[in-house]
Amino acid sequence: MQLGLSVSDSDVSSFTPLVVLELADDTKAEAITWLLNRIRGKQQNGGAELLVDQLLFPAQDGQKSNPNVFVVGSTLQRLLKGAEDVGLFKEFQDGTMRGFTYANRESFKDFYGDGEGFLSDAECQYIIKHELDTLRAKNEEHVPGYPKVKLYPGKSVVRRLQSKGVLVQYFPLHNKEDLKRLSFSWYKKIKLYFQPLDDIRHYFGEGLALYFGFLEYFTFALVPMALIGIPYYLFDWENYDKYYVLFAVFNLVWSTVFLEVWKRCSAMLAYGWGTLSRKKAFEEPRAGFHGALGFNPITGREEPVYPSSKRQLRIYLVSVPFVLLCLYLSFYVMMVYFDMENWAISIYNENPNVATGILLFVPSIIYAVVIEIMNLLYRYAAEFLTNWGEPEILLSNHLYLYSFNFVNCFASLFYIAFVMQDMVLLRQSLATLLITSQILNQVMEAFLPYWLQRRRNKKVHKRMRRMMGDKELPLLEQVQLETEMNTYLGTFDDYLEQFLLFGYVSLFSCVYPLAAVLVVLNNITEVYSDAFKMCHVFKRPFSEPAANIGVWQLAFETMSIIAVVTNCALIGLSSQVKAYFPESETEMILIVVAIEHVLLAFKFILAFVIPDVPKHIQVKLAKLEFDSLEALKKRVNGRKAYW
Amino acid sequence: MQLGLSVSDSDVSSFTPLVVLELADDTKAEAITWLLNRIRGKQQNGGAELLVDQLLFPAQDGQKSNPNVFVVGSTLQRLLKGAEDVGLFKEFQDGTMRGFTYANRESFKDFYGDGEGFLSDAECQYIIKHELDTLRAKNEEHVPGYPKVKLYPGKSVVRRLQSKGVLVQYFPLHNKEDLKRLSFSWYKKIKLYFQPLDDIRHYFGEGLALYFGFLEYFTFALVPMALIGIPYYLFDWENYDKYYVLFAVFNLVWSTVFLEVWKRCSAMLAYGWGTLSRKKAFEEPRAGFHGALGFNPITGREEPVYPSSKRQLRIYLVSVPFVLLCLYLSFYVMMVYFDMENWAISIYNENPNVATGILLFVPSIIYAVVIEIMNLLYRYAAEFLTNWGEPEILLSNHLYLYSFNFVNCFASLFYIAFVMQDMVLLRQSLATLLITSQILNQVMEAFLPYWLQRRRNKKVHKRMRRMMGDKELPLLEQVQLETEMNTYLGTFDDYLEQFLLFGYVSLFSCVYPLAAVLVVLNNITEVYSDAFKMCHVFKRPFSEPAANIGVWQLAFETMSIIAVVTNCALIGLSSQVKAYFPESETEMILIVVAIEHVLLAFKFILAFVIPDVPKHIQVKLAKLEFDSLEALKKRVNGRKAYW
Repeated sequence: MQLGLSVSDSDVSSFTPLVVLELADDTKAEAITWLLNRIRGKQQNGGAELLVDQLLFPAQDGQKSNPNVFVVGSTLQRLLKGAEDVGLFKEFQDGTMRGFTYANRESFKDFYGDGEGFLSDAECQYIIKHELDTLRAKNEEHVPGYPKVKLYPGKSVVRRLQSKGVLVQYFPLHNKEDLKRLSFSWYKKIKLYFQPLDDIRHYFGEGLALYFGFLEYFTFALVPMALIGIPYYLFDWENYDKYYVLFAVFNLVWSTVFLEVWKRCSAMLAYGWGTLSRKKAFEEPRAGFHGALGFNPITGREEPVYPSSKRQLRIYLVSVPFVLLCLYLSFYVMMVYFDMENWAISIYNENPNVATGILLFVPSIIYAVVIEIMNLLYRYAAEFLTNWGEPEILLSNHLYLYSFNFVNCFASLFYIAFVMQDMVLLRQSLATLLITSQILNQVMEAFLPYWLQRRRNKKVHKRMRRMMGDKELPLLEQVQLETEMNTYLGTFDDYLEQFLLFGYVSLFSCVYPLAAVLVVLNNITEVYSDAFKMCHVFKRPFSEPAANIGVWQLAFETMSIIAVVTNCALIGLSSQVKAYFPESETEMILIVVAIEHVLLAFKFILAFVIPDVPKHIQVKLAKLEFDSLEALKKRVNGRKAYW
Repeated sequence: MQLGLSVSDSDVSSFTPLVVLELADDTKAEAITWLLNRIRGKQQNGGAELLVDQLLFPAQDGQKSNPNVFVVGSTLQRLLKGAEDVGLFKEFQDGTMRGFTYANRESFKDFYGDGEGFLSDAECQYIIKHELDTLRAKNEEHVPGYPKVKLYPGKSVVRRLQSKGVLVQYFPLHNKEDLKRLSFSWYKKIKLYFQPLDDIRHYFGEGLALYFGFLEYFTFALVPMALIGIPYYLFDWENYDKYYVLFAVFNLVWSTVFLEVWKRCSAMLAYGWGTLSRKKAFEEPRAGFHGALGFNPITGREEPVYPSSKRQLRIYLVSVPFVLLCLYLSFYVMMVYFDMENWAISIYNENPNVATGILLFVPSIIYAVVIEIMNLLYRYAAEFLTNWGEPEILLSNHLYLYSFNFVNCFASLFYIAFVMQDMVLLRQSLATLLITSQILNQVMEAFLPYWLQRRRNKKVHKRMRRMMGDKELPLLEQVQLETEMNTYLGTFDDYLEQFLLFGYVSLFSCVYPLAAVLVVLNNITEVYSDAFKMCHVFKRPFSEPAANIGVWQLAFETMSIIAVVTNCALIGLSSQVKAYFPESETEMILIVVAIEHVLLAFKFILAFVIPDVPKHIQVKLAKLEFDSLEALKKRVNGRKAYW
């Protein structure tokens, strides 16, 4: 971020605008004055000490724009101090990552002069968001002008305003020049090499960069499987359901190694980005978080604390019955699908021709669409439930969410494979589900929002032309455009999609070797469409510092264990294996079970033996810890206990 | 430890003697002078700055004692500075555990006056051991007087002298008064309550205290199983091999919960003792450790570094073939045992009477004795191999060691259970193995050494009387006695015994419910005999700071996973279960396998859900880390990078 160019760059504000704050257009004047004073106020008085300006749109043609749009910026010094508050880790002059402090700023690598360019764009916006979020009510009883919007000491002002509809939204502004550069190196040229992960991280933050890193890694990892799948598909088409044993074994090994290697890659990325050393536990709680004020036992800071028993009760009383209901619904839909399937087959058998042949695929397609809709509905419901809570509830909700999606997507396949034992139907059903859901996803995720966004852009553009005539006011137009863009809801949906694709590939691809090919093709377009949607379809999201892919690592690992069991069972069902044990089915089952146990043991030993964090990074982390403890030893002297 | 009383307490040295150093009786005078100078020398000159005195035994009757026995002690200040060097964690005045520093000594809880009584006896001796071990060669080319005992800069002097036989041994002295108090509260009175773990830790250090804590916990945990086992045994004697299903299910759940709860107990103990926060990685390497000098990448200290590729090669070239050879031998012995068993049965069948009935048990008893001998031999061989190496080799050697013991002890039982499917023989074999090995262990471990020790004590006592007539020189006599005691080789053998007992109980106790009863009885006597042997049979061992039971946690967990599989298989073999599926064996197997998978999944979920460290201790650890990082942030300023 180049603050030096700020004044000449922007047209209506005296600083580089970083974040846009939109209040409702009927907001009372005293509330606005109060909020701006809090944002501008000195930190020792509980202010955020940020810069804020109102954007004034020339009213014309009676079409009035919302007058209460503000841009927030900051001085460089304030940002650097904020970087210390949020606990950013930066590369120290000795090559290790250290917690940044304003006092020691000169000792950090890449810190030159007054520190221009030291913080990335995404970091600056993250800091501003953090400062706004932690603007806490002092002794005001309510928001000025709104006697009903009560304030309680220590609660987040911004969150309160947002939940009451006074604050419509706040989001980081795009940096047009950087965006152009990023999108060019990211997706505008056809290339065979890697995505610019560091640039993505610089612009969108670590959370998104890790997602794209994972997407790329997953896609590359699938290539060998796809390459093996094609000859399988071409040469054994008629009877590869007999010869899938080798492919199942490959799947087993692949899914284990895949995840272990990713953990190491992810640790390397996160260390370089400074998020591996940064501890989540020390962070402030989410701004939205309702609860009484208390002391954080770790940092000693005053902040809202959520009562634990209430939390547990909510999880059990609301989430569990809800998930059970959804699962019941999902099974019911599956049964309807099997009825439809039978009906289609009976019609085909009565009168086999091209039309009825196509009809055979209709139930699967309808079922795939219904599954997608149900996943979507569940997702919104879970989002609604999650909004209540704080990180711990979030985690359990995510667990429910992916359990539900798992059952919803795979229940029918498991039923076909192990209860009906119909490998032909399994193949057909898998192919239909996979293709349909991929097409639906791409349309829903990128093309539909893009199309809607283009229509909106044109309208805004026309309106701006009308309002301003020939005056060139790019900032005003940019803010207008971005205000009306959709909000990106986080990487959750994107990971979920990859998780389900991973499931299709690792669980059943041995009966349908083209699955990996389809997923690779899907993911190549996915990289481009996701990149495009981040840059041009959605509002720029705030950066989310992430050290790993979090709960998804666990989800993928669970899936890979299920994959071992499933693949062994499929091997046991194959006629190829059965042929070896003509008399004794029992013996065959026992051998398959024994092999499965050996594979599972091997998997756990492998996970145990391969360190999650590469050795050289372990050493650096240990060194940081050692130095910290040494520093504490020296410093504790003379300090009063504050526990 | 009460240093204030030192002068009046001891008879021949001017300070409280803590550690005894015995050199060979023909050691050259210049070597002795050199060593004593190094021990007494200032720290800045590479000395240990400790106090050391020679013990002079009055020579009489031509029976000369070794003149080169020294006692080492220290000033209180030196010990406190040493506590900082070894990185002890002590309770801070705010109730948390902090790394001790001499500068901040006054801020620690229980530090009064000049710090008398602040460090435990075991800690003082540990500190002295550490200081002696880290006496490193400077520019001396060889030990004075011994041109062949070469010295290399940075290598441990003490270790070099020990490996060349110049230093015979060094060990901590018992504190007679403390020992009397400890042994009274520990095992001299019959009681139903817990062992005095804190006192044990105070006297012997954390490693041993954790062992006794584990032994006690394990024994208590077995009581419910023993209580269930007795009625099973009494009322179903004739056909409980049909009714063991319920018992097997109980075993499954028990073995999982048992280990999870222990982890939490162990974390609580270790936190209170300051070893949970203390990081192993920051410790100096073992003194015995051969290797070139280099920089520890974490602490930045100069110390010997072991080349990694050489290490790997040694493991593979020596350990692996050795283990394979031993396993082959073990299987061979097992086959001989089965031959003997068949031979005994054939004799009994020819002529069934009391004598041949007793003969039936003879093969099992012989086999049990042979197993014990083989375990012992392997253990010494492994000890020999381990002496080479350093912690990483040690770990893999331990893994081989317990794998070997596992196979050696349980191979025959698995063979009988699953290949021969003979539950009666299994029961008989299990009972004989268990009882024989328990008796052997108690004899070998405590009674035999005790008997040898008593004979030796009497001899020493007589000799001392002869030498000194009526003079009361208790220190001389104590040193003489303790010098000739056997050395305690660490908790490894004791844990190994518990590990094998855990195996007998968790794997097969459902077919022999009395197993748990036998183990409980064994462990009650074990507590007493182990306590007795620590106090009176062996030399006092140096304290080993331990945060958990280390590799044994993993070993026990692996065993409990094997227990799930074994118990499920035993359930599948039971006639009770088979009776439910009269036609279809396949169906029965599939159901048993499914149940086993559910149980394993449940086990992993349980292990995942139950935090290893209790919440309140997690908070304290996180607080320590947070404070450390904050301290580092503040301190880094102005410091030069030394990476």
